[in-house]
Amino acid sequence: MIKFDSTNAFLEEDIVSYQQQVNELHEAIVNKTGKGNDFLGWVDWSENYDKAEFEQIKKSAAYVRENCDVFIVCGIGGSYLGARAAIEMINGLYADKKPEVIFFGNTFSSTYVAQVLEYIKDKEICVNVISKSGTTTETALAFRLLKQFMEAKYGKEESSKRILATTDIEKGTLHDIAAKEGYQTFSIPSDIGGRYSIITAVGLLPIAVAGISIDDLMDGVKEAFVDFADADLTKNSAYAYAVARRILQNQGKDAEMFVSYDLNTSMLAEWWKQLFGESEGKEGKGILPCSGTFSTDLHSLGQFVQDGKKLLFETVVTFEKPIIDVVFPSDEDNADGMNYLAGKSLDWVNKMAMQGTLEAHVEEGNVPNLILTAPDMSAKSFGYLCYFYFRACAMTCYMIDVNPFNQPGVEVYKKNMFKLLGKN
Amino acid sequence: MIKFDSTNAFLEEDIVSYQQQVNELHEAIVNKTGKGNDFLGWVDWSENYDKAEFEQIKKSAAYVRENCDVFIVCGIGGSYLGARAAIEMINGLYADKKPEVIFFGNTFSSTYVAQVLEYIKDKEICVNVISKSGTTTETALAFRLLKQFMEAKYGKEESSKRILATTDIEKGTLHDIAAKEGYQTFSIPSDIGGRYSIITAVGLLPIAVAGISIDDLMDGVKEAFVDFADADLTKNSAYAYAVARRILQNQGKDAEMFVSYDLNTSMLAEWWKQLFGESEGKEGKGILPCSGTFSTDLHSLGQFVQDGKKLLFETVVTFEKPIIDVVFPSDEDNADGMNYLAGKSLDWVNKMAMQGTLEAHVEEGNVPNLILTAPDMSAKSFGYLCYFYFRACAMTCYMIDVNPFNQPGVEVYKKNMFKLLGKN
Repeated sequence: MIKFDSTNAFLEEDIVSYQQQVNELHEAIVNKTGKGNDFLGWVDWSENYDKAEFEQIKKSAAYVRENCDVFIVCGIGGSYLGARAAIEMINGLYADKKPEVIFFGNTFSSTYVAQVLEYIKDKEICVNVISKSGTTTETALAFRLLKQFMEAKYGKEESSKRILATTDIEKGTLHDIAAKEGYQTFSIPSDIGGRYSIITAVGLLPIAVAGISIDDLMDGVKEAFVDFADADLTKNSAYAYAVARRILQNQGKDAEMFVSYDLNTSMLAEWWKQLFGESEGKEGKGILPCSGTFSTDLHSLGQFVQDGKKLLFETVVTFEKPIIDVVFPSDEDNADGMNYLAGKSLDWVNKMAMQGTLEAHVEEGNVPNLILTAPDMSAKSFGYLCYFYFRACAMTCYMIDVNPFNQPGVEVYKKNMFKLLGKN
Repeated sequence: MIKFDSTNAFLEEDIVSYQQQVNELHEAIVNKTGKGNDFLGWVDWSENYDKAEFEQIKKSAAYVRENCDVFIVCGIGGSYLGARAAIEMINGLYADKKPEVIFFGNTFSSTYVAQVLEYIKDKEICVNVISKSGTTTETALAFRLLKQFMEAKYGKEESSKRILATTDIEKGTLHDIAAKEGYQTFSIPSDIGGRYSIITAVGLLPIAVAGISIDDLMDGVKEAFVDFADADLTKNSAYAYAVARRILQNQGKDAEMFVSYDLNTSMLAEWWKQLFGESEGKEGKGILPCSGTFSTDLHSLGQFVQDGKKLLFETVVTFEKPIIDVVFPSDEDNADGMNYLAGKSLDWVNKMAMQGTLEAHVEEGNVPNLILTAPDMSAKSFGYLCYFYFRACAMTCYMIDVNPFNQPGVEVYKKNMFKLLGKN
C-alpha cells in the first residue's frame, strides 16, 4: 500500500545488504524480545484489541456528536498529536464537520487557556480527558479548569455524562476521579506508549467523534500488520525506509525533512516528529526531525534546502488521490495569463510542482530524497501509514541499539520544573 | 526593548571580539553599500514610508471590517507569513475577533482550495490579493478562482470594491488587472523583498483588518530603528544575537531551534524560518532553522533536544507578559492533587516550565541556549521584534559573505515546474 522509492537518495550502500541484521531485529520486534519489549503491545494490536471497548468508542462518539458544538480533547504529546494528525489529514482543514474539535491541556500558555475558555463559554461542550496517570501537569491543570467550568454550567450529573476519560484501567489519579464521578472510561493499555497510542482509545475516540470511520482506520492497521510480517527488504517498505535513514545518516545527513504537498498533512508531520524524535533521540544519537509543507514552504525553507548547508535529506510523503480535486477554469480575458492551465486539475498541478521540486533538489541541489507514496487520504490509508511508521521507527532505532519505547530525557525538565513549582 | 542573554550558550569566543567586523558591516547596512543593497529599503522604512498610503490602509481596513465575515488574504511566502504571524501572536488563536481571516493562494493543494471555496460559499467576503508581479503561480491560480466566485456572487462592480490588491505600483500582471477592474491598490516597494515586507502594505493591511493598531506596530519598528543605530555589541542585541549564531555554528551547531512557550507564537517561528533560512541558506552555508513550541513539544521533540545528536542550539523567545493571565483555582476535593498550584498564575507556571527546561537542556543536556526577552505580545513589541530580526539577519548573513536579499534557489523548482506544466 505504501510504495517506497530510494532511487533519488544517493545511497552509497545497498539497502538489501542489511537484510541479515534486519532479519534478526525483525524477530526481536515480532517476538517482543528487543529493548523496551514491555511496550510492544502495538505490534499485534490489530489482532488483539478489545472489541467490546471498540464498539463502546463508537457509541460514545455518537453521543458526543449529538450533544455538543465543541468537543475538547484534553491531552498532550501522544494524547494529542495522533488524533489531531488524523482528523486534519482525513477531514481536511476547512471541512464542514460538527462538532468543532479543540485541543487543550497541551500547554501552560495562559493566553491560550483563557481564550479557549472564553470561546466555549456559551457553547455546548463535551470533553475527553486523556492521561495515563492523571498527573501530567499541563493536562491536569487544564482539566481542573474545564471540570469546574462544566459543573458550574451543567451541574455535576450532566457534566459526568459529558466528560469521557481515557486512562489507566486499574489505577491512578484520573482513574480514581473517573470512578468517583462516574465518567465513561476508556483504557490506555499498559504495553503501548504514548506515541504509539493513536490506534488505541487515546486516538480512536476523538477520531470517531470527528466523524471518521475507525473501522476503516483499524483495517489499515491490520493490513499493514499482515504486509510487514515479511522482513524481506525488497518487499517491506517500512524496513527499507528504516535502513535508508541509517545509510543516509552514515553519509553525514543528520536532519530529515518530512515533506508533504498538502496543508492538511502538516500535523501528520508533527506526529511523525514525536514518533521518530522521541524514539530515536537518545545517547547522543538520532536524526533531527523537521518538516516542510510544499509548495507553501518552498517560499520559505526552499532556498535553504536547495542551496544551504548540506546536512539534510528529504522524505516526501505523497498521496495519489486528494480528498477533493478542482478543475481550473478558463477565463475569457486571460488577463492573468493563466489559461495555459485551464482544464487541468489542481492535483495534477500539485504533482507537477512536486516533480519539478524533486528534480531541483536532487539534480541541482544534491539533496537525497526518499519518496513514500500512499494511495489516498482515507482513514484506512492513515491507519496503514501509522503502522508503517511504527515498524520503521522500531527497526531504525534497533539498528542503532536504542530503546524506541522510553523517553528518559523528557523527565529532566519535569523534575526541575516540579522543584521550581514547589511540588512535593 | 529586547534583552539578549548568551550566558547559557557555551560560547567559546567573546561576542565583543567581533566588534570591528560588525562595525564595518553595520556601515554597509545603514549606508546601503553591502551585497544586495538595492533591497535595503526596509532599513529606514519607519522614517520614509508613505504616510498617505498608511492612512488609506486604515480606511480600507475599516471598510473590510464592516463588510465581511471572512477576509481572505491571497498570497504566499512573504505575502503570507508575516501577517499571519502578527495576527496570531497579537490577537491569540481563539480571540473573539471579526472578520475571520483565511490565508489562501499559498498552496496547490486541491483539497485545501476546494474546502475553503466551499466554506466561504454563503459568507460575505473581502479579498486582499498580494503579489509583486501577479504571476506567482499559487496566488494567481487561487485568485482567478476567487475572482470568478465573487463576480458570480456579487457582480463585477461590487466585487471590485471587495477586492484589494497589493502589488507593484507601476507595472505587472496584477497591477494591470487592478487598474482595469478599479481595485483599491497598495504598493510593494521595489527595494523591499518579500520576507522583509511585513512592515509595508503587504503585512499592514491584513494586520489592520484583524483589528490591530498598525500605528503601534510602526512605533515599534521606529523604536528599533533608533535603538539599533548604535553597533556597540554590548548594547545592540540584534547584532549580538547575529554574532552568537556565527560563533555557535563555528562550534559545530548547524541547526537552530526557535523555541517559544506560547502556541500563538508558532507562526512567528514560521516567519522567522523564512527570514533566516531564505536569507542565509546559500552557497552551501547557513544554519538549518527549525522550531518547537514548548511545553507542548517537550512531549515530542524534547527527548531529542535533551539526549539526541548534538547538532543544535536553541534560541528561546520569551514574553514578560502574556495577553491574558489566569489564576489557577483551588478545589475542595483536590482529587487531582493540583492544589499546590492554587492561587498561582498560569503564566508563572509557564515561566517555571521555561526555567526548568533551560536548566535541563543546558546543564544536563549541554545544549547551548540563547534567550531573547520581549516585554509583551503587543503590536508595538511585534514591530520591534521584526526589525530586531531584520537587522540580526542582515548582519549574520554579511558575516559569512552571503547576500541576505536574494533567493536564487527558489527559482529552480519553478523553472522545472513550468516546463512540466507546459508554460511558455
